[in-house]
Amino acid sequence: MTQGKKPTTLSELLRDAPRNWGRWGPDDEVGALNFLTPEVILAAVGSVRQGKVFTLQVKMANPEGDPLWPGRVPAQRMNVLDKGHWLAGKGPAFPGGIEYADDFLACYLQGSTQYDALGHTWYDDELWNGYDARTTIGGLAKASVLPLAERGIVGRGILLDVARWRGKECLERGETFTHQDLLACARQQGSEIRPRDVLVVRTGWIGSFYRRSREEFFKDFLEPGLTYSPELVRWFQEMEIPNLVTDTMANEVTFDPETGIAIPLHAALMRNLGVTLTEIAWLDDLAADCAADRQYDFLYAAAPLKVVGGTGAPVNPLAIK
Amino acid sequence: MTQGKKPTTLSELLRDAPRNWGRWGPDDEVGALNFLTPEVILAAVGSVRQGKVFTLQVKMANPEGDPLWPGRVPAQRMNVLDKGHWLAGKGPAFPGGIEYADDFLACYLQGSTQYDALGHTWYDDELWNGYDARTTIGGLAKASVLPLAERGIVGRGILLDVARWRGKECLERGETFTHQDLLACARQQGSEIRPRDVLVVRTGWIGSFYRRSREEFFKDFLEPGLTYSPELVRWFQEMEIPNLVTDTMANEVTFDPETGIAIPLHAALMRNLGVTLTEIAWLDDLAADCAADRQYDFLYAAAPLKVVGGTGAPVNPLAIK
Amino acid sequence: MTQGKKPTTLSELLRDAPRNWGRWGPDDEVGALNFLTPEVILAAVGSVRQGKVFTLQVKMANPEGDPLWPGRVPAQRMNVLDKGHWLAGKGPAFPGGIEYADDFLACYLQGSTQYDALGHTWYDDELWNGYDARTTIGGLAKASVLPLAERGIVGRGILLDVARWRGKECLERGETFTHQDLLACARQQGSEIRPRDVLVVRTGWIGSFYRRSREEFFKDFLEPGLTYSPELVRWFQEMEIPNLVTDTMANEVTFDPETGIAIPLHAALMRNLGVTLTEIAWLDDLAADCAADRQYDFLYAAAPLKVVGGTGAPVNPLAIK
Amino acid sequence: MTQGKKPTTLSELLRDAPRNWGRWGPDDEVGALNFLTPEVILAAVGSVRQGKVFTLQVKMANPEGDPLWPGRVPAQRMNVLDKGHWLAGKGPAFPGGIEYADDFLACYLQGSTQYDALGHTWYDDELWNGYDARTTIGGLAKASVLPLAERGIVGRGILLDVARWRGKECLERGETFTHQDLLACARQQGSEIRPRDVLVVRTGWIGSFYRRSREEFFKDFLEPGLTYSPELVRWFQEMEIPNLVTDTMANEVTFDPETGIAIPLHAALMRNLGVTLTEIAWLDDLAADCAADRQYDFLYAAAPLKVVGGTGAPVNPLAIK
Repeated sequence: MTQGKKPTTLSELLRDAPRNWGRWGPDDEVGALNFLTPEVILAAVGSVRQGKVFTLQVKMANPEGDPLWPGRVPAQRMNVLDKGHWLAGKGPAFPGGIEYADDFLACYLQGSTQYDALGHTWYDDELWNGYDARTTIGGLAKASVLPLAERGIVGRGILLDVARWRGKECLERGETFTHQDLLACARQQGSEIRPRDVLVVRTGWIGSFYRRSREEFFKDFLEPGLTYSPELVRWFQEMEIPNLVTDTMANEVTFDPETGIAIPLHAALMRNLGVTLTEIAWLDDLAADCAADRQYDFLYAAAPLKVVGGTGAPVNPLAIK
Repeated sequence: MTQGKKPTTLSELLRDAPRNWGRWGPDDEVGALNFLTPEVILAAVGSVRQGKVFTLQVKMANPEGDPLWPGRVPAQRMNVLDKGHWLAGKGPAFPGGIEYADDFLACYLQGSTQYDALGHTWYDDELWNGYDARTTIGGLAKASVLPLAERGIVGRGILLDVARWRGKECLERGETFTHQDLLACARQQGSEIRPRDVLVVRTGWIGSFYRRSREEFFKDFLEPGLTYSPELVRWFQEMEIPNLVTDTMANEVTFDPETGIAIPLHAALMRNLGVTLTEIAWLDDLAADCAADRQYDFLYAAAPLKVVGGTGAPVNPLAIK
Repeated sequence: MTQGKKPTTLSELLRDAPRNWGRWGPDDEVGALNFLTPEVILAAVGSVRQGKVFTLQVKMANPEGDPLWPGRVPAQRMNVLDKGHWLAGKGPAFPGGIEYADDFLACYLQGSTQYDALGHTWYDDELWNGYDARTTIGGLAKASVLPLAERGIVGRGILLDVARWRGKECLERGETFTHQDLLACARQQGSEIRPRDVLVVRTGWIGSFYRRSREEFFKDFLEPGLTYSPELVRWFQEMEIPNLVTDTMANEVTFDPETGIAIPLHAALMRNLGVTLTEIAWLDDLAADCAADRQYDFLYAAAPLKVVGGTGAPVNPLAIK
Repeated sequence: MTQGKKPTTLSELLRDAPRNWGRWGPDDEVGALNFLTPEVILAAVGSVRQGKVFTLQVKMANPEGDPLWPGRVPAQRMNVLDKGHWLAGKGPAFPGGIEYADDFLACYLQGSTQYDALGHTWYDDELWNGYDARTTIGGLAKASVLPLAERGIVGRGILLDVARWRGKECLERGETFTHQDLLACARQQGSEIRPRDVLVVRTGWIGSFYRRSREEFFKDFLEPGLTYSPELVRWFQEMEIPNLVTDTMANEVTFDPETGIAIPLHAALMRNLGVTLTEIAWLDDLAADCAADRQYDFLYAAAPLKVVGGTGAPVNPLAIK
């Protein structure tokens, strides 16, 4: 890839890239989450030193707006019962007089902070672990979000506050960074990235959604994010990173600056290595706290909804310091 | 209540019952979750001794069926994009050839394992902390599920396997138990209920949904569960229980056997004391493990979705042993 | 088909059956609706002799229940705004003081009285007019309900009240009838089936849904209806029937009694001849009126919703006598 | 109203305005549709002189966009079954080999061409016919769209092509017109507005949605439309107009230019007189045809969906010339 013609397909780009297919057996659907062994979990608990809790989901069905990939519509939450029914003489009469409210939600499963299923993206007709891409039809029969949700994700999390490290409230449109930047950021933070850490990478991008006008946020829509390189992929593989969490919608810049190829890290990390991706995370409160107390590691505990066949599912991850 | 006429309303039944309104200020919306202080959380971490993880949500949009309170409809999950689109020449063409699947969900917010908002039920026109019941109209402006979701619930959990204690796969239709039974069950398990524990109470009921025909499960629908008594309410208050989790839809028998009043514990515990309720939990796997290794306590970590104004929200709680 | 082995596939059953593919050009998506020419419409207007109007849709989001093919869920209608909002101080304040109510619907497109798109069912990988069945993926690119909806259906309708003719409130579970029965029924009614008539066939089945318990209606679910025969198909072809409307969910008995093949009329009439099918119609009021005034013909005017790519769409047909 | 202070409320503005409450009995829910008697319908049939049919709904779930009042989201149509399922080995196997496609819709009931229920808007706590506004809570118990849908709307329609009359492709943002303009437009068209006609008024506005960018269409959103005057209201009353159909979202300019009061015609015509309103109609094809053949009258036949409790319902009206 470094000499001669630039690759134009993911096949070419990732011809020699590492894969974990088969590493955890032919039926594996959780990929690099296998790195989160009981030993890793027991060690991660050591990061709980203050008893502080942060929740990392953005609000859903927010009157201020939901940050969404263009084409999706915001979650619609609607009451089907509330006090109004009793004011109008329409509420059910229960013995003793209890009253209640009930509601309904219609949403895109990737329309909030969410875990991608390992089968959410693919190329060359094969998903994670070699499953046939036709298994995605009408619902993911393989590598859906369900096995991730049934396992849960518990490990040592580390915040890498790239925005703060670069002295910005929010990275610029299309601004990129690499794993070397993650390492430099960690060094400046005084924190150590350990093997099998859940990487929680902050760009400030999602936070900016709530401060900017819709027009400004979506104009020439291009997110900041990690960029592909063979070295980055090898680093994720060597570090046995189970999960990458970011405050962007795609977890990477949409188009590789070198080749123009779309979302190559979804291919190289998720489809090939089985690294789970968590997107649209709310990191600003956690980041402010970490900047104040200088503790950037925590017990990361997350469990997306157990949606059968889901391409992903909303999640409200916990960071426990 | 013990002499003279039986109470017919929650007002009468709970005239002298304890309340925590105002205890955490006039603006509180999380109630007994305030008991989960940093100290409690730090202590709870001590329950992680093996590095095992269990997830406590039932599956959603399950082709086998979703266990639902009569009147609600099961979650509908639908693909809006999958490999079929590319087989038909309809998929978007991205540089490099990445393909993906995307989907949509329509569901009742109380139609899976879920946290009730503290404002989900009320009587006498007032919710938890005295908020006007009209604040529920069109979405909960006060004591919605959002503050619970923003705080997260992290503490020491303890499984009380009432079904196993009674030597049953599943409690009977309408079978009741009391806090004294919970204490007896804990003693037999060799486990100690500590103040501020998250109580995870298993009846086997939801598990039976998947083994029984729909007709059998819903025939003369009446769940097993805890029953109201003034002593039980005082015990919850004295023990400062923040959260009650069960594998039933209502967390209590539907009608108080003594007075016929509907769901009095929602009134006495949730509305008056601010105890959060988690319903329709999947406890069978956790219970089997606890029966095997005799460790009934764990770090309980849960975070329902941050649905603005929600009467509740789905959740996939983690039990980390 | 009458000698030798019974056919086991639609291919075999319909090997020699007539087709209208190409009859209206390679791009046709409305099939036998082409028979409804301006001349036919002008003639049909002659059936309006009293100025009476009947509407033929069943209610949607009906608290009494929606009659649905097993597996679908009933339409959910939910208010997003109503007077309750103003009682709670939450309604928007418009100059002058206007207030309003607004609502949302989630439903199966085939979950009420509905037009099937011509591409709704197929066999041997081809739809009406020979379109590739892959065009159905993710939405019907060909022969969707949209062209039917854009054209509208206006012609002479004739009610054939098979239930009344057989002296029954409702046909039995699985009870069949043929085109000869339709002709006999018309004769007894004193009405004439003319070429290009919209046939409105009443079995009483949907009406029984509202009188029976759910258990009774769905027990061993098997609808009454027309049965396949080569002669019936030829008769539809010779009569140039544009549209068959019934008060059942499938417009025919589910399984051909002779071969066991499922819904062969969808194949023979809809896929091969381009006859449009309208299902789950509400015919009891119209039928009672026709029995009383002996006018069984009317101007039939229907227009399903213009849902892009829809496999069908709800409709509220008009019968104007 | 013409001297002294300008009215600031609908109560003041419409103090002396006519009302039809009680005119058709205390239980009436269809208002001015009562004017569409059998005699009117029989006469209207005379407008069918060519056998041409036009359908007046805009497309729903249109990839090009749905024209929606700000705040609503476009209809989402999703396949739950299609040929992809069989390509992936997931389709159900029916005897004989029939295959089919099925889909689901989530939409605002006022999110396409639609009939407003008579109870859709109100002021002073009372709806059409004096019904208490609390009856709207959780679904319209009175004057919902259901009675309109059960009755159907059949009468003589007349197109008033205000845009063409003013020599414009589309009226300007906020451009107004009066009933005198409608009369002048009719005169120029050579067509006569008769008592009890369904008025179909074209501004070109909805058509422009499909030609303009979203930004342009919604910038300083202000529709063209009819404006309130006491004379206009009296004219509607004297002409006994049953139904006003337009190609705008609100059927009138949003704010009365004289008083600033929002949508006074919804109050004066719909709430007080019981005139039904049909909005977001697709009139461009009909208008082009009328301009060509000079026949501006037609049989108007429409029936919104029978949505129980609906504030409105989508409709695909027919114009039969």
